[in-house]
Amino acid sequence: MKQVLITGSGVFTPAQVITNDELVAAFNQYVDLFNAENAEAISRGEVIALEYSSSEFIEKASGIKSRHVLYKDGILDPYIMQPVFNKRGEDEHPEMVEMAIAAAHEALAQANKSAADIDLIICAASNMQRPYPALSIELQQALGAAGYAFDMNVACSSATFAISNAVNAIRGGTAKVVLVVNPEFASPQVNYTSRDSHFIFGDVCTATIIEAADTATSSNSFEICGMRLKTEFSNNIRCDVSYTDHCYPDLDAETPFFRQQGRKVFKELLPLVADVIEGEMAACGLTSSDLKRLWLHQANINMNIFAVRKILGREPEPGEAPLVLDTYANTASAGSIIAFHQNKTGLTVGDHAVLCSFGAGYSIGCLILRKFA
Amino acid sequence: MKQVLITGSGVFTPAQVITNDELVAAFNQYVDLFNAENAEAISRGEVIALEYSSSEFIEKASGIKSRHVLYKDGILDPYIMQPVFNKRGEDEHPEMVEMAIAAAHEALAQANKSAADIDLIICAASNMQRPYPALSIELQQALGAAGYAFDMNVACSSATFAISNAVNAIRGGTAKVVLVVNPEFASPQVNYTSRDSHFIFGDVCTATIIEAADTATSSNSFEICGMRLKTEFSNNIRCDVSYTDHCYPDLDAETPFFRQQGRKVFKELLPLVADVIEGEMAACGLTSSDLKRLWLHQANINMNIFAVRKILGREPEPGEAPLVLDTYANTASAGSIIAFHQNKTGLTVGDHAVLCSFGAGYSIGCLILRKFA
Repeated sequence: MKQVLITGSGVFTPAQVITNDELVAAFNQYVDLFNAENAEAISRGEVIALEYSSSEFIEKASGIKSRHVLYKDGILDPYIMQPVFNKRGEDEHPEMVEMAIAAAHEALAQANKSAADIDLIICAASNMQRPYPALSIELQQALGAAGYAFDMNVACSSATFAISNAVNAIRGGTAKVVLVVNPEFASPQVNYTSRDSHFIFGDVCTATIIEAADTATSSNSFEICGMRLKTEFSNNIRCDVSYTDHCYPDLDAETPFFRQQGRKVFKELLPLVADVIEGEMAACGLTSSDLKRLWLHQANINMNIFAVRKILGREPEPGEAPLVLDTYANTASAGSIIAFHQNKTGLTVGDHAVLCSFGAGYSIGCLILRKFA
Repeated sequence: MKQVLITGSGVFTPAQVITNDELVAAFNQYVDLFNAENAEAISRGEVIALEYSSSEFIEKASGIKSRHVLYKDGILDPYIMQPVFNKRGEDEHPEMVEMAIAAAHEALAQANKSAADIDLIICAASNMQRPYPALSIELQQALGAAGYAFDMNVACSSATFAISNAVNAIRGGTAKVVLVVNPEFASPQVNYTSRDSHFIFGDVCTATIIEAADTATSSNSFEICGMRLKTEFSNNIRCDVSYTDHCYPDLDAETPFFRQQGRKVFKELLPLVADVIEGEMAACGLTSSDLKRLWLHQANINMNIFAVRKILGREPEPGEAPLVLDTYANTASAGSIIAFHQNKTGLTVGDHAVLCSFGAGYSIGCLILRKFA
């Protein structure tokens, strides 16, 4: 089978930043307002008083110090507590496409390719800004690419699963050069009034160029020498917003929002992750001492520390399993790609590394990479 | 490259039927109510009076005589004019998964496979009932399948594009036996108060089993000997419902609904369809006289007649290009698969046929099939 490479990557990072302190200040003001407004019901025991959040709690629980978002103002207004922005018209790109254009240009430049070389675009993300026309097709037109495009979604593993589809399309002969984009416009799915989850997500978009070795001219590329994908159903990370919502007689106010059972996820998901990574390493004839770097999903620092210790059998060296969630927060499927993009230099041709996503579904996508050029 | 086959197909058809006469009776009652309620504004010229629909107009414009739907009652109530149903809890399957289970069982039986043989499930449809966990993963658990699963969407070409991803996954080595399901729960996206579009869609689910020749034991299978996929951006068929809708200060009441510029679609899309089919036939060394059957997208009888005449260069014989939209209406990506499923007997081993989808995006997905067993 054809040798297939990742020849370029790109990240679009929104300019606006929300620190934990800013987020907590808004949240705690919201708590004061809520508790004052509901003081009588709280005193009668009919409503439970809300409790303050804190930057220390957030950083300890998650490793997150700040996050990038597209629309900061509404999120930090205790009377609004969500991003607010105007719906774009048919003659404007929706946010997900706009972010993808920027990330795609960086990935194309790294891969030494032009948009005209692209013959397949996969837009893969946890949420889509409309059902049709597919966002990937709008991106195709905006870039001036040919061929075909489709949207796909498997939550936090959207990027790795899309890369596997790209590899298969090249091997199957339906594409030569594939652009995968992961516009994770996550802030609209966050319930900013929930102490347990208001800090979790940030907005970002990643892009990768996938092509066969015989067309590659990139000076920093990685062969995809192993792929292992696994899914196992769980409701422990769930979002229910639907195109059918207007048909329901009753609709929970929580409907648009992400929710999770964090402890169950930690306990159930990590053994699956270790199995998938160890299984694919074995299939590739690799042991942990062969791994020069681990670009892992970025949801929670404690999950990453646990996973890295399990796979390496020891504490990681500095830079061996880079973290980006301190400044990006959880960015769903984009997380491991940001870690890769920002930390892919310093390897020698022939070095092996792991790129692995894990999250909602459950879904786990493991790529074994080998420094190629 | 491996020979890859479609070894089974299945269709789940909802029991409830709405005839044109029933639909028009409800619509015309709605018109009377609307015009009476707005009589003064209409007489002042501030509101435009609505006009009656008619069964004759619908059948002439589209070829549609009736459609299957999951929830008939609200659609036929002139005071409601949309499907109404309760949101299912986390312990119940959403409608899209429920339909997919039934269609999958029929496809598995035809393919002489059990769910345990499946190692990839692709849920491909024009709309998804939630962002995560992916519907395909819930289906995977419900059936008892292993491997991995993901959801994808490229509107009316979701089925053909998913089949191409299945073929590529088998050739790329990430899967052996793939289940593709296309649960098109279309009625919630219909604006039943719009004379131009109230008749267009029906609900259905199709399923196909894709596997390599060396695992196939089906007694009625088709080799996929050519695939050509093309997308070209257009807003002429569009739906804007989004997980971000709660973030907009203003939201158009039309947001959840399908809308189209039918004449533009007819004019722009059909030349693309002919190009794609003729291009792939030529690549496979086939001429129109080699085609024993055409299973085409089912959106509009006039589009199908035009496309068939263009490809064959003559009027089709009865049964050569089967229509199912008279009883199913437009079922988005499922249409060409229903036509295939219901009309795939009577061919001789070695006979060639075309299965082609076309629609929103624009997207065109053409498969050249050869009767294998």
